[in-house]
Formats: sequence, structure tokens, C-alpha cells
Amino acid sequence: MIHTHHTAPTQFVEANGIRFAYRRFGKPDGVPLVFNQHFTGTMDHWDPAVTDGLATEREVILFNNAGVSSSSGEVPTSFEQMGRNAVAFIKALGLQQVDVLGFSIGGCVAQEIALAAPNLVRRVILLGTGPRSGEGMAGGTPEGNQIFGATYEEPDHLWLSVFFTPSQASQAAGRAFLKRFRLRAKYRDPEVNDKVAPAQRAAIAKWAAPRERPYDYLKAIQQPTLVVNGSNDVIIYTMNSFILQQNLPNAQLIIYPDSAHGSHHQYPELFVRHASMFLSGAEGREYLSFENGRPLATSGNRENDHAQPHR
Amino acid sequence: MIHTHHTAPTQFVEANGIRFAYRRFGKPDGVPLVFNQHFTGTMDHWDPAVTDGLATEREVILFNNAGVSSSSGEVPTSFEQMGRNAVAFIKALGLQQVDVLGFSIGGCVAQEIALAAPNLVRRVILLGTGPRSGEGMAGGTPEGNQIFGATYEEPDHLWLSVFFTPSQASQAAGRAFLKRFRLRAKYRDPEVNDKVAPAQRAAIAKWAAPRERPYDYLKAIQQPTLVVNGSNDVIIYTMNSFILQQNLPNAQLIIYPDSAHGSHHQYPELFVRHASMFLSGAEGREYLSFENGRPLATSGNRENDHAQPHR
Repeated sequence: MIHTHHTAPTQFVEANGIRFAYRRFGKPDGVPLVFNQHFTGTMDHWDPAVTDGLATEREVILFNNAGVSSSSGEVPTSFEQMGRNAVAFIKALGLQQVDVLGFSIGGCVAQEIALAAPNLVRRVILLGTGPRSGEGMAGGTPEGNQIFGATYEEPDHLWLSVFFTPSQASQAAGRAFLKRFRLRAKYRDPEVNDKVAPAQRAAIAKWAAPRERPYDYLKAIQQPTLVVNGSNDVIIYTMNSFILQQNLPNAQLIIYPDSAHGSHHQYPELFVRHASMFLSGAEGREYLSFENGRPLATSGNRENDHAQPHR
Repeated sequence: MIHTHHTAPTQFVEANGIRFAYRRFGKPDGVPLVFNQHFTGTMDHWDPAVTDGLATEREVILFNNAGVSSSSGEVPTSFEQMGRNAVAFIKALGLQQVDVLGFSIGGCVAQEIALAAPNLVRRVILLGTGPRSGEGMAGGTPEGNQIFGATYEEPDHLWLSVFFTPSQASQAAGRAFLKRFRLRAKYRDPEVNDKVAPAQRAAIAKWAAPRERPYDYLKAIQQPTLVVNGSNDVIIYTMNSFILQQNLPNAQLIIYPDSAHGSHHQYPELFVRHASMFLSGAEGREYLSFENGRPLATSGNRENDHAQPHR
């Protein structure tokens, strides 16, 4: 049976003394893509349009990091430790090479995974996230604090404010997203417990604290990286995506119009196409495949992709 | 006969008292794409990997604006007037709707075309360019002035410094580009005369002059716009592409890694794929084409594209 976002069973694997909950589905070929989730999110907060869209060409792996929802253990108070836990989880699956995607604070974890285990990670996708000491990240943005501090008649409607702009088009996209992310009917993850948000906030505070030459560490992330955000992210300001691109050695940046923290939820099909092109190596060295001004077929490989099998 | 970048004959059309030289080729379908060239460039300075690549799905139109190379008249000392001349040229071809692409100062002209004739322009692509009063544009950047002021054993090698970074990979891409742009053997454009550079510089000075609320005018460019640049453009700083995206009402931004003013010359195949997706309307409203989390076929249209035939 070919599983999808809606049918993939929750499985478990032990590592670092944690019982990690995960789901894997998609084309069992090539390098799997490991998803790292946002603040207080579970596996069910991913967008099936994105996960199933990307799963048509590769295996995708969703998981809950330590202490989150169906995973055991406690949420660490640093992204560094969350990254180490994620590496332990990936290795426990027997994988030798993965691509990692991280959204919001999951993007901080994805950076830490790449730093902790550079040979494990082939490519990185950073969605709606920022660097250490990023602009407006210490203490959260005023807009973000207002959005997270408000109450909503429908709790899910929080995400309309977090992920989308106030425009009619963006809000319509938001309502479509909310429908999609509630479509999985069976074996959903339990909501996170009360300890998750404070621990994740403590990790954000450490990450966001001002420091000398804060972006120097990005030079160590040498993997090809795709940075994506909306034009008007008020949770982690869009400028932070530009800063990531400018300081990572090998990063492509895409910013979408009239969109916010969840631009990939607003433009899932476009994002899947852009991300698929990136993951298949379409950005590199392809000028070699032109002769006499006519494009030839692309190999889909580039020299800095590792050649060894990934498991 | 299907023409290409290398075989398309130079044709002429009169408008505004100017005899405009142009070439058109590609799939004679849909909305044509009109190219606006950089400082002192002619039709021969376009990259056949880009023009022929984009011509597989649409007609492309290259032309020399007034006073440049094989076109008659004088180069105006404002982009506004260059824009008006371009509009006259497009209308003289009998076209009712076009997409416009502008590179460097051609991107300033493309903005002026959209402002002068909003109903004529469906979509806009801005490459390595900036807004009025953009950062470092008044008087040119120190790096740019040094590059344009130096002498080169091979005159074409100027472009290795203007368009590419000093990295080995970027310079190799630059040499491949120089080969491509010399491949058209017959009926090349004459080089521009001595009056072109000073007039274009005067236009840059007016455009770049500091003014109050300089970016407000961008709100009037309501067309879907794709802004593209390299990570390290030292001719028109990369930050200006971010400023364009942030101030245009409906703009997508793509920044490529380890690249400079001519990033589309460095990654021609990737740029053609990104630009083709953009021109076919792939960025808009496609969340409507998802049902039950599975992507459906895209129509390639969006509601704000005009429905009428373009000629």
C-alpha cells in the first residue's frame, strides 16, 4: 500500500532515551526529506498539499521531536539539543543521508542538524525562519506577541493570523489550509502538553539573544540551502530570510507576494515545484548543459551532492 | 522557418520618429515577452540560453531603444522617456498586450513601461535592477565605478567583472556566457556610439537622485512581477531587489547563490524554468487546485490576467 499524509501510520523508534513518533510515506527512492515543525506544532500541523506534493518524488518523514505530542521525553530548552535529538532520530532510522526542511523554529532546528551532522545532511530548506540573533526574534515581535496572546473562537483560527496576511486572498488561502490540515481523520497526534510552549520559548530566547558577529556560524552550513518566506512575515520578520541568504555560503532565496509566515501554506503547489527543483539539484552547474545556446537535458545532479547511497 | 536567437533577422519599425531595430522569434503563441537591455548593450548582448529558452513557450522580442546601435534617434536622458519610446515601439508592432523583462537599467525602463501603459503590460520581470533612489545607485557603486573604469585586454572581459562574482564557479559560468553571446555570427548589431553611455548615465543620475518617500511609486505597478538577482550584485546592490519586492504590490523575489549582477547568465536554465513558471501564472491561486490534499492540474491562468487576446 502506498501511504499518504492521511493514511501513513504513526510509528515509533527509540534513540537518546526518547521514543520518537514518526510517519514516513511517498516514493521510496533517493534522499528522504525530514520535516521539522513550528512552535507547538505536531505532525498533524503539516500541510498535506506540501507533504504529499513533495512525496510524489521522494520519501518524506514527519516526526515529533522530544517531548512533543506523541514523542516521549522532555522538550529541551535549546535548539542545539533539539538538533542533536533529531540527528539521533534520523540515525535510528538507519539513514545515512537526508534532506532537512524546517519551518519557523523548526528552521532553527534544521540549521542545528546541519551544523551537528554535516555529512548526514545533503540539502536544507528553511521556511519562515531566521538566524541566531535575528531581527525582532528576541522576545518575539510585537505583532507575534499580540497574535499569540489573543483568544480565538475557533482555536485553529490562530493560524489564520500567524501564517497569513490580512488580505482577502491570503485569508481565503488560510481557510483552505485549515481544511486541508484537518483532513486526516484517524490516528491524529494528541495536542502538545503545557510544558512544550515554555520550553520552546526558552530555546527561542537563547537563539535570539544578541551576540557578536551573530551570522558567522552560517558559513559552516555549506549544504545547498533554499530559504523561503512570505513578503510580510510578522512572526519572524522577512528580513531574516534575506539575512540567511546573504550569509549562508550556498543559498537561494524565494519570497512570495502578499504572504506571511506560512507562505508555503498559501502557495503550496508553487512551493512544491520550487522545492522539487531545488531538491533535484536544478540550480547548479546547468550552464554546462547548454550548447550553441540550446538547452540540453539536465542530469539533476551536481558535483557537491554526495554520490554514496543514502542508507 | 522557425527562427532562433542566432537566425532571427533584424527588422525595423517606425514610431515616435524613431526607426526601431528589433528581432522576434519563438513560439508565436500567447503573450510576447519584450526584452529591455542593460547599459550600453545591444540585442546581441542577450544570452541565447535565456532568449531561446524562454522562446520555447512564447514569442520573444528583442529591440534597441532609441539611439542605441541599429535604432535611429537619440538616447533620452530619462528612463521615463525611454519607457515612452518602448511603449510606442510595442504599439507600432500592433501588440495589445505584452510581458516585459528588463535587465539593469532595462529594469528601470521596464518599470516606466508598466507605469506609462498599465493596460499594455500583463507581467513584469526585473533582473539585477532597483527602484528610484535605490541604495548605492546615485553616482554608481564604488565597485561598479572601478569595474567600468578599468581596461580589459579582451573588451568582452568587462562583463566577467560586471555580471559574475570572483569565485571559480561564477567565472567559469561567465566564460561560458561570453561564448554563447558571441555565437550569433551573422548580422550582429553595431556597437553603440559614443553618445549612448553619457545619455544613459544622465538617466541613471535622475533616477537615482534622493527624493521623499522614493518607493511609493511602486504601488502603481500592480502587475505580477518577478524580481531576480544574484546574491552579490555590486553594480546595483542586491538589497535593491529586496526593496523592490517589499514595495511592489505583487512581486515574487528570487535570489541565486554565489552570483552577481548577471545571475540569469550564470544560471540560465534555472532562470528560464523560474521565469516560465512565473509567466505562465503558476504563482497564483493554485491552492484552489488542491482537493483532499492532492494536487490537481494547474490551469496556468489567474484571475488578474487579462482575458482578451493580446493582438
